[in-house]
Amino acid sequence: MQSPIRKKILEAFAKGEGKFLSGQELANQTGCSRTAVWKHIEELRKEGYQLEAVRKKGYRIIQTPDKVSESELLIGLETSMLGRNIHYQQSVDSTQKIAHILAQEAVPEGTIVIAEEQTSGRGRMTRKWHSPKYTGVWMSIILRPDLPPHKAPQFTLISAVAVAQAIGEIAEVDAEIKWPNDLLIKGKKVTGILTELVAEADKINSVIIGIGINVNLKKEDIPNDLENIATSISLESGQTISRAMLVQRILLKLEKYYKVYIDEGFYPIKLLWESYAVSLGQDIIARTINETIYGKALGITDEGILLVKEEDGKIREIYSADIQIQS
Amino acid sequence: MQSPIRKKILEAFAKGEGKFLSGQELANQTGCSRTAVWKHIEELRKEGYQLEAVRKKGYRIIQTPDKVSESELLIGLETSMLGRNIHYQQSVDSTQKIAHILAQEAVPEGTIVIAEEQTSGRGRMTRKWHSPKYTGVWMSIILRPDLPPHKAPQFTLISAVAVAQAIGEIAEVDAEIKWPNDLLIKGKKVTGILTELVAEADKINSVIIGIGINVNLKKEDIPNDLENIATSISLESGQTISRAMLVQRILLKLEKYYKVYIDEGFYPIKLLWESYAVSLGQDIIARTINETIYGKALGITDEGILLVKEEDGKIREIYSADIQIQS
Repeated sequence: MQSPIRKKILEAFAKGEGKFLSGQELANQTGCSRTAVWKHIEELRKEGYQLEAVRKKGYRIIQTPDKVSESELLIGLETSMLGRNIHYQQSVDSTQKIAHILAQEAVPEGTIVIAEEQTSGRGRMTRKWHSPKYTGVWMSIILRPDLPPHKAPQFTLISAVAVAQAIGEIAEVDAEIKWPNDLLIKGKKVTGILTELVAEADKINSVIIGIGINVNLKKEDIPNDLENIATSISLESGQTISRAMLVQRILLKLEKYYKVYIDEGFYPIKLLWESYAVSLGQDIIARTINETIYGKALGITDEGILLVKEEDGKIREIYSADIQIQS
Repeated sequence: MQSPIRKKILEAFAKGEGKFLSGQELANQTGCSRTAVWKHIEELRKEGYQLEAVRKKGYRIIQTPDKVSESELLIGLETSMLGRNIHYQQSVDSTQKIAHILAQEAVPEGTIVIAEEQTSGRGRMTRKWHSPKYTGVWMSIILRPDLPPHKAPQFTLISAVAVAQAIGEIAEVDAEIKWPNDLLIKGKKVTGILTELVAEADKINSVIIGIGINVNLKKEDIPNDLENIATSISLESGQTISRAMLVQRILLKLEKYYKVYIDEGFYPIKLLWESYAVSLGQDIIARTINETIYGKALGITDEGILLVKEEDGKIREIYSADIQIQS
């Protein structure tokens, strides 16, 4: 976690909007001595900030490091609730696991866990998720909606819409949603979403949304056995993406659609979701825990459940599955 | 946690079935010196064990302390899975919270968390559960059934049957089940069960069953505002109950019925449950999160959901509620 003083210094620069701030101004705003300010400025340089120092004018930030630490995320964050409490670490086993543990403490709704690297990142069905350092968004979000447990899977769809829109706006590349929890660019996976539920019989205690996004992975960062099915945003868009900006945009979108969902129900989200969905109307193979279902993907219900019409005309409700589009 | 050597000594006594064991025999079985054995015997005395020492014969245990520590629970435990991994502490905030955290680690199915005291024990809807020291069973059990999430509430009913039977056998007093999660003796509450779920969309990761039982609470241990609605097993049966034996019996019953449930489904459990149920056929008031429903409790479905017939004949399905029997 970043020191509170350095956080204050970065906030002061953020408020200054690119202007020079003198050592004395920074000392006033942080409540420490000018010598202490100078030491913290040196620490920020070590963390990857490029700071210009001009005599009689002071300091200004020229470039922030490509990190997703608390200070990078808080500067410019436009949400009121999501991401206002950030648990950032360089390296974790799994952000999802840490979020589950935090959910047992009294952390506020909207708390996020984010790391530069996961050593045991996990996806649906405890599958591994490859999460190399400084290249992706490896994040878990704690929500506490006052809803019954069967609503939880809808959060995968709400999150998918938020992430697809954020990718479109920040990277200017189209991401499509493959039900239930994958985002694709040009047919290859860039994002997985894992929604987990902690609940009593009739009441959600927490929904923990894990979001893994391949942002700036290079070809060599993608394991060989995945190279035909996985890609990264930068590989497809041809540019390096600011992960912090992407996270900020995702949080803003998710907060917005979470509010829409709570106020107006799932229907408006469903319409948005359908506009990004890739598998609807297609012949698919759906592999669930128990069976394999062949048929046409008709759409999703108001609960977010996939409807598949089998060859004999029977309509099946699918809660979660691996979907393969038949070509 | 008890020292591994003392655990071995207690296991040796358990195997010896009341016979004397010499210091040398204990040294052989534990792999330490006779001096070390002697020191551990003194420690056991401090923990409340009464040990008889007879020259040339050795030691034997006359009485074990009324604790629910690992060694007390393991000696005589007849289960193969439940309670084979025990996290015991003198005092915890909440066994349920610790179990949630352990569930995120790779602890084996059947792991239990048990404590002599909870400082922030909790029941359904984050209500407080009063859990004074050495007087009750404050325990959480981690199961990992391969089932869809909507099955989780059934574990409250399976557990209720196990606890009701165990109380009947150990304390020789009849406990009745009040749907969904309370056990009563003579109309007053002695047990609460809190089943919590950790899940993905279509798959349970863990079911965490919290069981709180007022075992040996005296009148003065029960808060004034609860004295008309709560009691303890010993207050109703007139005898002090071995908490360790009660826990062992609960674990044995629960393991048995869990297996029945997995092998044969909920129906046989439902029949058992109905034989202990107090509210069926009665006019009740059911207060759910959202509303208050008046009607006759008809029974439970094969999913464990309560069916209530309202005055206009409409039948309502209730997932969880506070039930009051109309008199």
